Amino acid sequence: MTFDLVLVGFGHVAQRFVTLLDETRETLARDFDVSTRVVAVTTHRHGRAYAAGGVAPQALVECHRRGEAIGRDDLDLSTSDFIRASADRGGAAKEGHLVVVETTTLDIAKGQPAIDHVRAALASGAHVITANKGPAAFAYHALAGAAADAGRRFLFEGAVMDGIPIFNLVRETLPAVRIDGFRGVVNSTTNYMLTAMEGGQTFDRALAEMQAAGIAEADASLDTDGWDAAAKTAALANVMLDARLTPHDVDRQGITAATGPQAVAARRAGRRLKLVAAAARQNGRVAARVAPEELPADDLLARLEGQQNAIVLRTDLVGEVAIVQRGSGLTQTAYALLSDLVAIAREISARSDARRARV
Amino acid sequence: MTFDLVLVGFGHVAQRFVTLLDETRETLARDFDVSTRVVAVTTHRHGRAYAAGGVAPQALVECHRRGEAIGRDDLDLSTSDFIRASADRGGAAKEGHLVVVETTTLDIAKGQPAIDHVRAALASGAHVITANKGPAAFAYHALAGAAADAGRRFLFEGAVMDGIPIFNLVRETLPAVRIDGFRGVVNSTTNYMLTAMEGGQTFDRALAEMQAAGIAEADASLDTDGWDAAAKTAALANVMLDARLTPHDVDRQGITAATGPQAVAARRAGRRLKLVAAAARQNGRVAARVAPEELPADDLLARLEGQQNAIVLRTDLVGEVAIVQRGSGLTQTAYALLSDLVAIAREISARSDARRARV
Repeated sequence: MTFDLVLVGFGHVAQRFVTLLDETRETLARDFDVSTRVVAVTTHRHGRAYAAGGVAPQALVECHRRGEAIGRDDLDLSTSDFIRASADRGGAAKEGHLVVVETTTLDIAKGQPAIDHVRAALASGAHVITANKGPAAFAYHALAGAAADAGRRFLFEGAVMDGIPIFNLVRETLPAVRIDGFRGVVNSTTNYMLTAMEGGQTFDRALAEMQAAGIAEADASLDTDGWDAAAKTAALANVMLDARLTPHDVDRQGITAATGPQAVAARRAGRRLKLVAAAARQNGRVAARVAPEELPADDLLARLEGQQNAIVLRTDLVGEVAIVQRGSGLTQTAYALLSDLVAIAREISARSDARRARV
Repeated sequence: MTFDLVLVGFGHVAQRFVTLLDETRETLARDFDVSTRVVAVTTHRHGRAYAAGGVAPQALVECHRRGEAIGRDDLDLSTSDFIRASADRGGAAKEGHLVVVETTTLDIAKGQPAIDHVRAALASGAHVITANKGPAAFAYHALAGAAADAGRRFLFEGAVMDGIPIFNLVRETLPAVRIDGFRGVVNSTTNYMLTAMEGGQTFDRALAEMQAAGIAEADASLDTDGWDAAAKTAALANVMLDARLTPHDVDRQGITAATGPQAVAARRAGRRLKLVAAAARQNGRVAARVAPEELPADDLLARLEGQQNAIVLRTDLVGEVAIVQRGSGLTQTAYALLSDLVAIAREISARSDARRARV
C-alpha cells in the first residue's frame, strides 16, 4: 500500500526520516508492501508545500539546507487547518492511508501545539506518528481515545527512547504481563554531563560541550532542569501504568552546578550519580519522579555512559526486564517513526484481508 | 477462542505452565478472548492421559507429585503417534485450535525426539509451542517451513531467554532492521559458577551448589561444557542471522576446574570472566562461538550476576540494543509458552475476522 505523508515540522528528525524512507525503500516494499510519498510539508519558519502527486523529499532537504523556504502554499492557514486541508484534498485519508508525521519541538508548558496537530489529524482521518513527547506526556488517554473513535492509530515510539521499541515491546511482546513500575536513565545530555562532572568538569563547560555537539535541547534547561526526563516519565507512566500524569505532576529535580561535587564524591565512593526517572503504583495512585540518585556500581543504570539509555521494567510475571540502548541519535529517532509506520501497515493489511474477503 | 492443549512432557516447566494458565485465566479471557483446556498429556515415565472434554491440570500436577502415573491411555503408541491420535480425535486441529506444548528435555546429539514431535504435531494440524532448544537449534528452517506449509505456527520463545521475548522483540518491534550479530550471556549455571569461582570456590563445589538449587541441567555437563549455550546460540543464529547451524557447528569451549584461577586473576585485574555466546556474519557465512572471555568491567555482560541473562544485538539501523533479564526461573519459562499461545491467538483472531467477513 502507498501511504501519503503530511510532515508537520521539517527539522533534523523529519529530514532524516525521509532520507531513511528512501534508504529502506526496497525492504519496506518487499517485506511490508509499503511505499510512501510526501504530499505535504509544513514548517514554522521555512514555508509550506503541498503536492497531490508527492513532493521530492530530497529536494526539500536540499532546499531547507540552503535556508530557502520549501514552498509558499496556504500560508494563511493555521497549521491545524493546513493539516485538515491536506487531508481533505486526496482520497488517502478516507482509505486510511494518510499519515501525519508530527515532529515539532516540545513545549513543556502544555504540550501544545502538537496536541492540536494530533487532534486535527485524527479528526481528518489521518493516522499520526510522532517523535514529540508532548502529546503522550500531556494527553495520552484523550488522544488514544480520539484515535480509537476515528479508527486510526496514534503512535509515538520515538518519544522516549529513540529507536528502541519500548512501547511496542510492552504492547506486542509482554501480553498478560502487568507493569508495576519502571526506572531508567532517559536523558542523554544530563547523562553525559554527569560523567564529565565526575571527572572534574564544570557544569557550564559540560553543558557547552553538549550544545556544541548538538545533543542538548535548543533550550538546554529542558534537559538540565529534568523536564525532558519528566515528559518521558509521564508518557511511559500514562501508557504502561495507566496513569493520568502530565510532566508537571512528576516530582522533578534536575542537575545544577552544585551537582558536580556530589558526582565527584559518589565516584570516589565507588558509586555513580545518575539522573533517574522512575514511576510506580503506590497506594492506588502512580507516583513519578526524576532526580539525581547515587547508585551502587553494580546497578545496571550506573553503567550507562554518554548517550546510552535504559529502562528497567518491574513486572508481575517475568520479574525485572531491562532494555538498553547503546547508541542514540537522529537515525534512531527517525527509525522509531519508520517502525510506527510499519505497525500501521501491518494492522491495515490484517484489516484489508477482512475487507477483501467481504467483497 | 478455546485452545485444546496436548502436553508432550510434564516436568516442572509444563506443570508451571498449566498452573500459570489457571492464575492468568481472567486476563487471558478478558484481554485476548483465550481459554484453554488440556485434552492430552504424555510423559516419559509417568504414563499418559487423554480426555476429549479436558483433564484437570491441577489433579495431574498432584498426581505427578505423588509419583503416580497420570494415566494409562494408549501406552502402546509412540509419542509421535500419540500426538497424531490426539489431534485426530477432536475437531480442534482442523479449526486450528489445537496446540502441542513440547517440553521434553534437550538431547544434544541430534535434538531428537523433540524434532519428530514437532513434525508430527504440525502435520496433524496442531500449532507447536516449545521451551525445548532442540527443534530451533537443529532444524529451525525445516520446521518453520513445515509450519508455513501446514498453515500453523511453530514458536519457541522459552528456548533461549525464558520469559524474555527475544524472538518476538526482533519479529514484532524491529521491522526492517537487519541483525548483523549478537553476543550474550545465556547460561545461568555457568554464570553462577564463574562468580563463585572468582571468590575462590572450587569448580566441584560451585557445581554441586547449582545442582542442589535445581538450576543446573540434569546432566550438568550440558551446562559446563557449553552445550546449552551452544544450542541457544544456534537457535538465535538460525532465526536472526538466517544461519543453518546446529549446536555442533558452534565453536565451543566450556568451563573446567582450570577456569577457576583464570576467573580469580580476571577479577583481581578489575575484569570479569564470563561464558560469552556470540555469532556474526563474516565473509558471507555465520560464525558462532561459546567460550569464557575476560571482559572489561564496564561491559554490560560483565555486570550480570547469577541468573541474570542478556543479549546484545548489533543492528544496522538502531545500533546496539541489549535486553537484560534480571531474574529467571520456572515462571519465566512457563510465561514464554503463554506468550507464544497469545501470539497464536492474535493471529487467529485477525484471520477469523477475515473469515467472518466472508460469510
